[in-house]
Formats: sequence, structure tokens, C-alpha cells
Amino acid sequence: MSAAASAESPPPPPANIISGKVISAVIRAEIKTDCESIASKVVPGLAVILVGARPDSMAYVRMKKKACAECGIDSFGYDYPETVTQQELMDKIAELNADPKVHGILVQLPLPDNIIENEVTSAVDPAKDVDGLHPVNCAKLVTAQTHGGSVKMNWKDLSSIPFHIACTPQGCIELLDRSGVDIEGKRAVIIGRSNLVGMPVSLLLNHRNATITIVHSRTKDAQSVVKEADIVVAAVGRALMVKADWLKEGAVVIDVGINSVDAPDTKKGYRLVGDVDFKECEGKCSKITPVPGGVGPMTIAMLLRNTVNSAKRAAGV
Amino acid sequence: MSAAASAESPPPPPANIISGKVISAVIRAEIKTDCESIASKVVPGLAVILVGARPDSMAYVRMKKKACAECGIDSFGYDYPETVTQQELMDKIAELNADPKVHGILVQLPLPDNIIENEVTSAVDPAKDVDGLHPVNCAKLVTAQTHGGSVKMNWKDLSSIPFHIACTPQGCIELLDRSGVDIEGKRAVIIGRSNLVGMPVSLLLNHRNATITIVHSRTKDAQSVVKEADIVVAAVGRALMVKADWLKEGAVVIDVGINSVDAPDTKKGYRLVGDVDFKECEGKCSKITPVPGGVGPMTIAMLLRNTVNSAKRAAGV
Ligand SMILES: NC(=O)C1=CN([C@@H]2O[C@H](COP(=O)(O)OP(=O)(O)OC[C@H]3O[C@@H](n4cnc5c(N)ncnc54)[C@H](OP(=O)(O)O)[C@@H]3O)[C@@H](O)[C@H]2O)C=CC1
Ligand SMILES: NC(=O)C1=CN([C@@H]2O[C@H](COP(=O)(O)OP(=O)(O)OC[C@H]3O[C@@H](n4cnc5c(N)ncnc54)[C@H](OP(=O)(O)O)[C@@H]3O)[C@@H](O)[C@H]2O)C=CC1
Repeated sequence: MSAAASAESPPPPPANIISGKVISAVIRAEIKTDCESIASKVVPGLAVILVGARPDSMAYVRMKKKACAECGIDSFGYDYPETVTQQELMDKIAELNADPKVHGILVQLPLPDNIIENEVTSAVDPAKDVDGLHPVNCAKLVTAQTHGGSVKMNWKDLSSIPFHIACTPQGCIELLDRSGVDIEGKRAVIIGRSNLVGMPVSLLLNHRNATITIVHSRTKDAQSVVKEADIVVAAVGRALMVKADWLKEGAVVIDVGINSVDAPDTKKGYRLVGDVDFKECEGKCSKITPVPGGVGPMTIAMLLRNTVNSAKRAAGV
Repeated sequence: MSAAASAESPPPPPANIISGKVISAVIRAEIKTDCESIASKVVPGLAVILVGARPDSMAYVRMKKKACAECGIDSFGYDYPETVTQQELMDKIAELNADPKVHGILVQLPLPDNIIENEVTSAVDPAKDVDGLHPVNCAKLVTAQTHGGSVKMNWKDLSSIPFHIACTPQGCIELLDRSGVDIEGKRAVIIGRSNLVGMPVSLLLNHRNATITIVHSRTKDAQSVVKEADIVVAAVGRALMVKADWLKEGAVVIDVGINSVDAPDTKKGYRLVGDVDFKECEGKCSKITPVPGGVGPMTIAMLLRNTVNSAKRAAGV
């Protein structure tokens, strides 16, 4: 892959590494071009609601706004103190739902304890729910009648799907597609079944005609189940759980997990690792995502893309 | 099996046969008792909308009304000619949604071609959608935050789940439970992924902590995938597809399929068979449902139960 793959030309990753850094940079460049081509008709706008001053939340919001600016997406920030009331947030969301300059509304989670989180996120117009976590959008991943049904959707082009798909799961599929991994007919084992990652990524893989198996904390002998997989998606939150002897030779591994482990030798005192023991598994996989630099960077890229798609749908372009 | 397989003490079925006839009769008796015990507070009411004169639809509607009467559920029939308009149906549903005597609304499918089916079914108040096919109810099967989430649901008692679950999938789980089959931690393979049967039954089995694998028309080597299963649910619509050599010794088999095959030696000229070759498989399974007399009778029983649960929730009893 050439240096043109990003703004700051990262070195090419080893052949069997799926680099989310490189792929997300390519996607962001596409989004930028896309924004330029529609600029005369619509400028995509993302509203970002931040409550309180959690350093991690503030950092995420900063990154998202910066990414918007780089691609040509307007971002509108609404920062509230911890003491904000449910009603104030609901009123703001109602206002943003009605605002034609806003195509995406993002509520940075978690919200403080005095706020009923799912009441707030459910108030967002599903058409502007660029996080893809509104129950209506989650639901469409299941109820979309695509197999034998009347509405035909092209799951090979997630940008064409007429509702918002959660960013991290969407990012996982995009990583597979852009690495030339064929999903159709493959055995896919997904470890984890959360509404945020495991379940939606499972449903997406099913729509792409993988034969899916969902592993969770009550699964007996997870190791031998994972061994059946051509494609493994790990979304658990347990550092280095998946070992080389869990994998079939040549498996493709997407590691969603982000876990912090002690690393006294580093300046920060910790480092981030995935749910997969990368060092052990790397040699056995045909492809694998690293942590960090794998799924992580894809989440924001998909958020940007959802926002642009939302703007295009709103403007009819 | 004898004709007496109803409320009047049926003969015991062979030990490894899961009899939907017997189990549904038990459930109907429970429902009757339930209705009697709440009669002073609420009489459950089911509205049944029938359009046109398809003999099969008319027969189903007749069976459902009869079953209601036997249990102490009021049924209200609304029959329309083929020429009914979309608006007439929508108006009737709006009226039934508002009627406090109606706790369940059933639109007998299919509707004629000039009617937009999913617009009609989506108009039913989800709280009265006793068929469990409204997108909101389908969605809750996925988005219900039960694993690691804040809302705890008791999936071991489907009657306690505060939204309607589709009748046939619910019937499958009930058959397993009432036959003493332990679901937790088992490998379950579901053949078929339709919104009507395969997908919801998969999600229910996942909620019960089975490790699920979903097989469909694009699955490669379905036979060897099915062979991994402790529990097989077949919901395909292909006569006698699953053969004995597809099964692990001792597997439990739930056969949802209803297929009509030529039978020149019979009066009707055809007979109904499942997706599983019962004769071949019976000896290899620890338990198996027959067709007919397996899943079939459970569907109406679950419809009745959903209606009673809806009435109880409406009346707060
Ligand atoms: N890269 C990114 O952008 C993102 C990364 N993440 C990361 O992904 C990981 C998963 O996140 P999330 O889905 O929200 O986490 P949750 O805690 O909501 O879900 C974890 C899932 O893993 C399952 N699980 C737990 N222990 C085991 C075990 N021993 N064996 C098999 N399965 C197990 C749980 O099963 P059960 O249901 O039975 O409890 C559950 O379904 C985390 O590390 C998170 O930080 C998350 C979002 C975005
Ligand atoms: N007992 C009862 O009360 C009820 C019984 N039924 C019966 O259950 C059966 C299924 O119904 P329904 O879900 O509505 O049917 P659908 O036709 O909607 O779905 C059939 C499913 O089977 C899959 N399939 C088709 N061919 C194969 C194959 N060769 N190998 C593996 N999978 C295959 C399809 O895959 P793909 O998605 O790839 O196309 C699809 O997911 C029918 O026989 C129906 O009559 C249905 C409802 C109630």
C-alpha cells in the first residue's frame, strides 16, 4: 500500500496486519472528497452533546470535532455541566432534531447518574442517530427483510443501507472488506453479544451470509468453538483471552477489545491490549487487527460516514 | 397417537417424542384457569381481522376463535371483503388500539396485494401485538439489555417478559422447557433465519444462554454444522431435509417446518411432513417433535397466552 494512504504517510503494515490506521485514513480521504462534491448542495453537520468533564469523554469529543473539521463536516458542540437536567437535554435534542443544518446528533456517553441515559438517546431522531444505537436502528438490523423479503438491501455496500448502523460493528465489516476478506459462506465466531458490539456485528456478518456462532460468558469450551471459525471477532473486554491454540490455522481475526494492562516500564504505567494475544496469534492468522490501531480508528471514520450519508439523504443527493 | 390428545387425558407419547398436542393442551388448561382467576377484574379480548376468503386463512381464524372461547377469552371478529381499502383497515386498527376491551389484535396474513401489509401490522399498538411481529417487539428481542445491562429479564419465564414474543418461536422454547431440556450452555443450531421463525428463535435461545449458530441457504456444508448441535431447530420449509447422519447422537430436535408432499395413497392426496426426516432421525435423537402435532399446536397456545398476559398488564393484575 502506498504512502498516499493517509495524510501523514504511515509506513506500510506487514502483509497479514489489517491496519485500521491506514484503512480509516483512506476512508476519511474518501469522506473529504465526498463532502467537497456535495458542498454546493449541503454541508454535513454533526451536533455533539457533552455533559460533565470526564477527561476521556472530553478527549473523544475533541477527536470527533477535529475529524469533522478535517473532512469538511460542520460540528456544533453543546457542553453542559454535570448538573444539567433531563429536561434541558431533551429540549436540546428536540431542537437539534428540527434543525436542518444538523444531520447527525451524538450524545457522548456515559451521562451522569441523575440522567436517564436511554431516554436521552432514544429521543434522537433515528434519521440523525449517527451512532446507530437508537432502538429503531438496532431493530432494523434484525427486522430488515432482506432474505426472501420484499425490500432488497445491498449489505455489500453499507453506505447504501438506508438507516444508521452502529459505528464499531460497521467498522469491523469495513476492515474485512477493505482487506479482501471474503465473508460469504464463511464460519464466523463472534465472542461477546453486547448490544453495542457483539450482537450488531453478528447480525451484519449474517446479512453478509457468513454462518455465525455467538460465544458469550456462558458458552462451554469457548476455545473449541472459536477453533471452528474462519473469521473471529473478539468483543469481550478481557485482556489477551484468545490464544494461538484457540485459532484455526489461517483464521482472520478482528480484535475489538480495548483493555488496559499494567506496564511499569512505560511512562504512563499501562498499555492497551486487545482481547486477542496478538504476539502469539499473529503467526497463525491469515490476517489480524492490532490493538491499538485496528478497530479503534474505524469507529470515528464510520461516525463521519454516517453523518455524510445522513446529510445526503436529507438533501436528496 | 390417538385422537384424545387434548384436555381429556391424552395417552402418554413415546418417551423421546415431544408432543406439542399434549403440551399445548396443558398450556391451554393453564390459560383457562388463569382466565377464571382474573375474570372478576378483566376478561381478555382478542380482535381478529380477516380479509378475503382464503380457505386456509378462514380455517386458521376459526381455530383461533374456537380456542379463545374454550379458554374464556372474548374474541371479536372483523371480516372484510378483498376490496377493503388500506384506510378502512387502518381506521379499524386505530379503533381497536383505543378499545379497552381489546387486549390483542391479530391481522390474519397474507393480506391481498393491494394492501401494504407491513403498514397495517405496524399500525397495531405494540402492547396489543399478540402475534409479536411488530418491529418494536421484534426489536426488543435484540435490544433488551439483559446481559450486563440494567434491565433484568427472566428469560426462563417467557410469560414474565414485558413485551410480546412471536408465537411460533416462543412455542419452540416452551416445548424444550416443558420436556425438561436444559438449554443453558448447549450448542444450538438453528436452520433458517427468517424474521418469523429462525431469527427470533435464535435470539431466544441466545437469551437462554445457548451458544447459537445460524444456518441458512448460503451456509457451506450445513450437515457438518448441524452435527455440532445439542439442540437443532429446523425452520426452512424443505421436506425431510435433515437426515439422521446430520445429527449428533442424542441431539434434541425441534422441527418447525410444515411441508406438503404427495401421498397418492391418502384421501387428500398429500400429507404434511417437517424439515426433518422423522422416521430416520427418531432413533438417533434424545427428543424430537413430530409433524404434525409438534410445534404447530403451540402457535395458537402462545397466541392465547400473549392475549391473557396483555390483558393482565392492561388491568394491572
Ligand atoms: N474499538 C472500539 O472502538 C470499541 C471497543 N470496545 C471494546 O470492546 C470490548 C467489548 O465491549 P462491549 O461489547 O461494550 O462489552 P460488554 O461488557 O457489554 O460485553 C462483553 C461481552 O463479552 C462476553 N464475555 C465476558 N466474559 C467472557 C468470557 N470469558 N468468554 C466469552 N465471552 C465473555 C459477555 O457475555 P455475557 O453476555 O454472557 O455477559 C458479553 O456479551 C471492550 O473491551 C471495549 O472496550 C467497545 C466499543 C468500541
Ligand atoms: N409450526 C408453525 O406454526 C409454523 C411453521 N412454519 C413453517 O416453518 C418453515 C419456515 O418458515 P419461514 O421461516 O416463514 O420460511 P422462510 O422461507 O421465510 O425462511 C426459510 C429459511 O430457510 C433458509 N433455507 C432455505 N433453504 C435452505 C437450505 N437448503 N439450507 C439451509 N437453509 C435454507 C432460508 O435461507 P436464506 O435466508 O438464505 O434464504 C431462510 O432463512 C416453513 O415450512 C413454514 O411452513 C412457519 C411458521 C409457523
